[in-house]
Amino acid sequence: MKKGIISLFVVSLFLLLKGIAISEISDESSTCISCHESIYPGIVSSWEESKHSKAGVGCFECHGKNKDIHKDTFEHNGFDIHVVVTPRDCSGCHKKEAKEYSENMMSFAYDNLMKNSLYMDLEKNINFIGISKNALSKENVDTVRGDSCLYCHGTKVDVVGLIEKSTMFGKLRFPNLSGWPNQGVGRLNPDGSNGSCSSCHPRHSFSIEIARKPYTCAQCHKGPDVPAYKVYIVSKHGNIFKSIGDKFNFKNIPWVVGKDFQAPTCATCHMSEISSSDGDVIVKRTHKVCDRLSYRIFGNPYAHPHPLDPRTYRLKNKEGIQIPVSLDGSTLATSMLIDKTEMAKRRQNMTNICKSCHSTSWAESHFDTLETVISTTNNLVANATTEMIYNWNKGVISQKSLFDEPIEKKWTELWLFYANSIRFSAAMSGGGDYGVFANGRFFLNKNLIDIHNYQKK
Amino acid sequence: MKKGIISLFVVSLFLLLKGIAISEISDESSTCISCHESIYPGIVSSWEESKHSKAGVGCFECHGKNKDIHKDTFEHNGFDIHVVVTPRDCSGCHKKEAKEYSENMMSFAYDNLMKNSLYMDLEKNINFIGISKNALSKENVDTVRGDSCLYCHGTKVDVVGLIEKSTMFGKLRFPNLSGWPNQGVGRLNPDGSNGSCSSCHPRHSFSIEIARKPYTCAQCHKGPDVPAYKVYIVSKHGNIFKSIGDKFNFKNIPWVVGKDFQAPTCATCHMSEISSSDGDVIVKRTHKVCDRLSYRIFGNPYAHPHPLDPRTYRLKNKEGIQIPVSLDGSTLATSMLIDKTEMAKRRQNMTNICKSCHSTSWAESHFDTLETVISTTNNLVANATTEMIYNWNKGVISQKSLFDEPIEKKWTELWLFYANSIRFSAAMSGGGDYGVFANGRFFLNKNLIDIHNYQKK
Amino acid sequence: MKKGIISLFVVSLFLLLKGIAISEISDESSTCISCHESIYPGIVSSWEESKHSKAGVGCFECHGKNKDIHKDTFEHNGFDIHVVVTPRDCSGCHKKEAKEYSENMMSFAYDNLMKNSLYMDLEKNINFIGISKNALSKENVDTVRGDSCLYCHGTKVDVVGLIEKSTMFGKLRFPNLSGWPNQGVGRLNPDGSNGSCSSCHPRHSFSIEIARKPYTCAQCHKGPDVPAYKVYIVSKHGNIFKSIGDKFNFKNIPWVVGKDFQAPTCATCHMSEISSSDGDVIVKRTHKVCDRLSYRIFGNPYAHPHPLDPRTYRLKNKEGIQIPVSLDGSTLATSMLIDKTEMAKRRQNMTNICKSCHSTSWAESHFDTLETVISTTNNLVANATTEMIYNWNKGVISQKSLFDEPIEKKWTELWLFYANSIRFSAAMSGGGDYGVFANGRFFLNKNLIDIHNYQKK
Repeated sequence: MKKGIISLFVVSLFLLLKGIAISEISDESSTCISCHESIYPGIVSSWEESKHSKAGVGCFECHGKNKDIHKDTFEHNGFDIHVVVTPRDCSGCHKKEAKEYSENMMSFAYDNLMKNSLYMDLEKNINFIGISKNALSKENVDTVRGDSCLYCHGTKVDVVGLIEKSTMFGKLRFPNLSGWPNQGVGRLNPDGSNGSCSSCHPRHSFSIEIARKPYTCAQCHKGPDVPAYKVYIVSKHGNIFKSIGDKFNFKNIPWVVGKDFQAPTCATCHMSEISSSDGDVIVKRTHKVCDRLSYRIFGNPYAHPHPLDPRTYRLKNKEGIQIPVSLDGSTLATSMLIDKTEMAKRRQNMTNICKSCHSTSWAESHFDTLETVISTTNNLVANATTEMIYNWNKGVISQKSLFDEPIEKKWTELWLFYANSIRFSAAMSGGGDYGVFANGRFFLNKNLIDIHNYQKK
Repeated sequence: MKKGIISLFVVSLFLLLKGIAISEISDESSTCISCHESIYPGIVSSWEESKHSKAGVGCFECHGKNKDIHKDTFEHNGFDIHVVVTPRDCSGCHKKEAKEYSENMMSFAYDNLMKNSLYMDLEKNINFIGISKNALSKENVDTVRGDSCLYCHGTKVDVVGLIEKSTMFGKLRFPNLSGWPNQGVGRLNPDGSNGSCSSCHPRHSFSIEIARKPYTCAQCHKGPDVPAYKVYIVSKHGNIFKSIGDKFNFKNIPWVVGKDFQAPTCATCHMSEISSSDGDVIVKRTHKVCDRLSYRIFGNPYAHPHPLDPRTYRLKNKEGIQIPVSLDGSTLATSMLIDKTEMAKRRQNMTNICKSCHSTSWAESHFDTLETVISTTNNLVANATTEMIYNWNKGVISQKSLFDEPIEKKWTELWLFYANSIRFSAAMSGGGDYGVFANGRFFLNKNLIDIHNYQKK
Repeated sequence: MKKGIISLFVVSLFLLLKGIAISEISDESSTCISCHESIYPGIVSSWEESKHSKAGVGCFECHGKNKDIHKDTFEHNGFDIHVVVTPRDCSGCHKKEAKEYSENMMSFAYDNLMKNSLYMDLEKNINFIGISKNALSKENVDTVRGDSCLYCHGTKVDVVGLIEKSTMFGKLRFPNLSGWPNQGVGRLNPDGSNGSCSSCHPRHSFSIEIARKPYTCAQCHKGPDVPAYKVYIVSKHGNIFKSIGDKFNFKNIPWVVGKDFQAPTCATCHMSEISSSDGDVIVKRTHKVCDRLSYRIFGNPYAHPHPLDPRTYRLKNKEGIQIPVSLDGSTLATSMLIDKTEMAKRRQNMTNICKSCHSTSWAESHFDTLETVISTTNNLVANATTEMIYNWNKGVISQKSLFDEPIEKKWTELWLFYANSIRFSAAMSGGGDYGVFANGRFFLNKNLIDIHNYQKK
């Protein structure tokens, strides 16, 4: 521990020189910094720019929290710390945010995929078909999943044991973690909690500026299955953000419409607290994203009223499949979905934000358009799926898997890529092309014709 | 009106505090602001940062203009105003720009689509095939169109009647507009004019900075049918803009090459007035984009000399189709297209801009390459289309629609996506990949082979 | 020459006014500037902002260098100059960089394509099939190549003769260059050297800031065959760069991790010299990019240990094809590839950079994942290719070309687009979607099934 004390002295001097109020940093964190300032200069530097560093929240305050609950706790130079900081750790200070996030569908992204047998059928046909069996050890299966779907959904992080490594300070033991590194939104953590705040608040600045910028959301919401960022960036909002957003203030709290920004980002509409310049709260902050969403428009064949329970793997349609709408689109699992009153309330929540810059008629017409597009795209998916069902029932296409034959892949693209793109485009008035040529109606129609012609072959 | 006067007093104080020369704002606009400052804070704040606010151009100066011509004029708290501000309204101050724009093909984007029976055949097969008839009320058809093609092309905005709404100030009546909101470039307005200046000069800052940045053009020019932005951004010009463009001056008038910017954006080459640091005008501003364009390289099977008339729906090829080149590519509707002298003049207009930073040989070689690529891509389209014609004539493919069979969709992609991408890439020296793999020659060739093999099946 | 002296006086005044240390600019360059300041204002202005202008490196110092070696040297107003400045010219001052680059695979990008008969078979089927023979003069073939593959790979720039042009100063003669303009990385220059420094250091600022930003790399590394930029930008690193990179210092030398930047760009990991804030060099600058790369993950059916010789056209697999792995994936041309020791060393070089911000376990797990993904994607490609080989051998698919039949195009996409995208995604922890839906495993599997079903048709 003598080394610790000397280091503490050195780091004190260093921090004094940097003008940081040393008194606020705990002895433990100061000791951490004394070594890690030179071992991980990037991390320490990011932390120095964070609000945490000004508020006395250092390394140990997070990495030493809840030590008895953390399976990944290990002894490190006299301190019991853990590697994986979790929403439960953060909830010590950010209680409301953690609570809301625990009700957010994203926090169940792991189970919502891994416990849904329909999605697992798709996942198998994406990740594993064609890899020779001897290349598919349990470890490789986990690695491939962690690199593909679970990169965003989150992995299960487990402690496999301790591993000894040579360091500058001699041999040290560290926990050997499986499913690591990962920062997916629904990560299963070694303390039993779900999620990863660093998905959107990257370590170690945890900057609100980053979380409010659309590049953060783009990490997972850019592909053809969920092209939110792509649509946003060609919308009028995206255009203004890209053109003059460097003059916006992304750090102000509360975030004042008109004063701090002249066009919204993803966070503005979906999560942030927005105020008028008079200080009136236009909408409250939420980490439960669906608070402002009446429909779920992606990840399913049909857009549908939001589920009541964020654990979507608990949904069941009339065919017993873990999705909220029957395959032919006719029947909703209504009891598991929000009702019309709640839908109207959520639409109103969102409309209030629009009305900072748009007339009521503008905003209402916008959402009426979205609802028409939801209805027509659902109609198109029903058209295609009805033909698939006919062929599945007649045995022309095998029902063993819904995702392993070429025509099934075209059907998947039709709803997972194209219908979704069209809906996103309508949802954000987001550049007509994502509703037309860029993975939009042109391609939906192309696959629809192929499905329609399928039987005739 | 008493309320108006009190409000006027309040807003006067407010504006005085903000340091805005109150004398310049009209009484009418001051009254508007007195309420809307808190109802639409985002709009008022954007306007405050605009040149308009400094020049005494307030709400009423635009929304109250030409009231007798505007079908959407309505009485609002004692004022006759309209919602939809149009190029005719703007022309009160911006006469030259409005005149040029009225000769710009974009201002006819609605008719150029809706009155062209070939394009309407394509449009039908993109937007409506597969939606059940009972989902296609007249209203839904309009909504779907407004959400897809007409999002960029512009809708027809009509007054359906008046509608009563509850507001903070009691019940008020507002015009009920169909085709609204929309900011497409060829919008048909309730005052009989075409277009929407806010397509590129977003409300209410109408910032020249935004119009000069490529993100504005990307709103409509990014999809696979017209990937201008995508190509630009991987070009040398795009690279420099993205890397150091934050140091460019996007507000200076005249816009001085070398001093204000070191690499062009879309506006630089296609619209803006450019000066040398000596104050010489290198090229004059134009809102008639084809002033600097000898060829039209997209939206048609074949690239061709620019049409004389911006109303392209008036074109007719030898088969009677409303496009300027015969389907087999052999015959141009020459009398409706600019001649070689005009083409040379326009190429020279553009070359003059290049020569601010490039030698004559560099610029000339660049355009020679573009013309070779136009010729070879036209040749490839002719090759594919000749095979299609053979099959259409033999009845192997139905001629009833040119866009409803799988092989016709591949043919559409071949010219609408791939040939166009290749031409854009050549036009901007824009990153080889848009000419090769990214929707370029690789895919063109893939579809060509499929068309070639079609009959053999 | 009298004109030159007068001009010199004028430009001296001009430069004095601009505050540039006139004494440092050579008489020759001052003369160049005297005219070109008004003829090419953009170039001169960019140069003025360059380090060159401060260090006395003007026009003539580069364009007049090595005049006897340059086939494109010509007499221009009393000076012998050349148009095409080359790595050999730059090496006068930047010896180490030029030497390293001459060992960089990129400097052989022309030959590595044009002398590889497998790639030329692909190139032919991308660029030329379907263009009528009379449209394919030698000149057109060169132009098409220069516009497509050679845009990035570099053209062969040759002097065809002299050409007389009318200028402001009367008729002047200039070299007539074929393959010009071009700034591809492996350009064959008129002085016999390879490459073009302006590929990444655009003229005439040659700014290190531009070279360090990812938009520079995106010029050639964004398409589906090599989606490095696309993957980066949705990675955590890309997110942080896009969100707060405007506060990074892109000009500092040495480039200090934590202080100058908080997230890496392409250059950080692949080329730049990185220092700690203590001044310790974490990694040395290199212009031989593979110094930090153990595997080559794109441009080939199989990812493989890096070749020893940057001239990859010299590679030969057991079938005699100029690629380093047998078509079935089983046999590596081991003697021509780096060995395990060198691979480990290069991985360590890269890991050292990661460890500025990440723990050893984090970094090691990351690269372990990459290696698993390399192995599983190679396995998938082998699965598909084995089926292709079976059909090639049985004559079901013609072996005359490996790229001209529809099923061969799907096979090409499988490895050239999809397997590569997946590997890039793993290499940069770059957003799961490029490993899943965005040209990732979903599409790989789709094409694999088509290949598997092929024979049954």
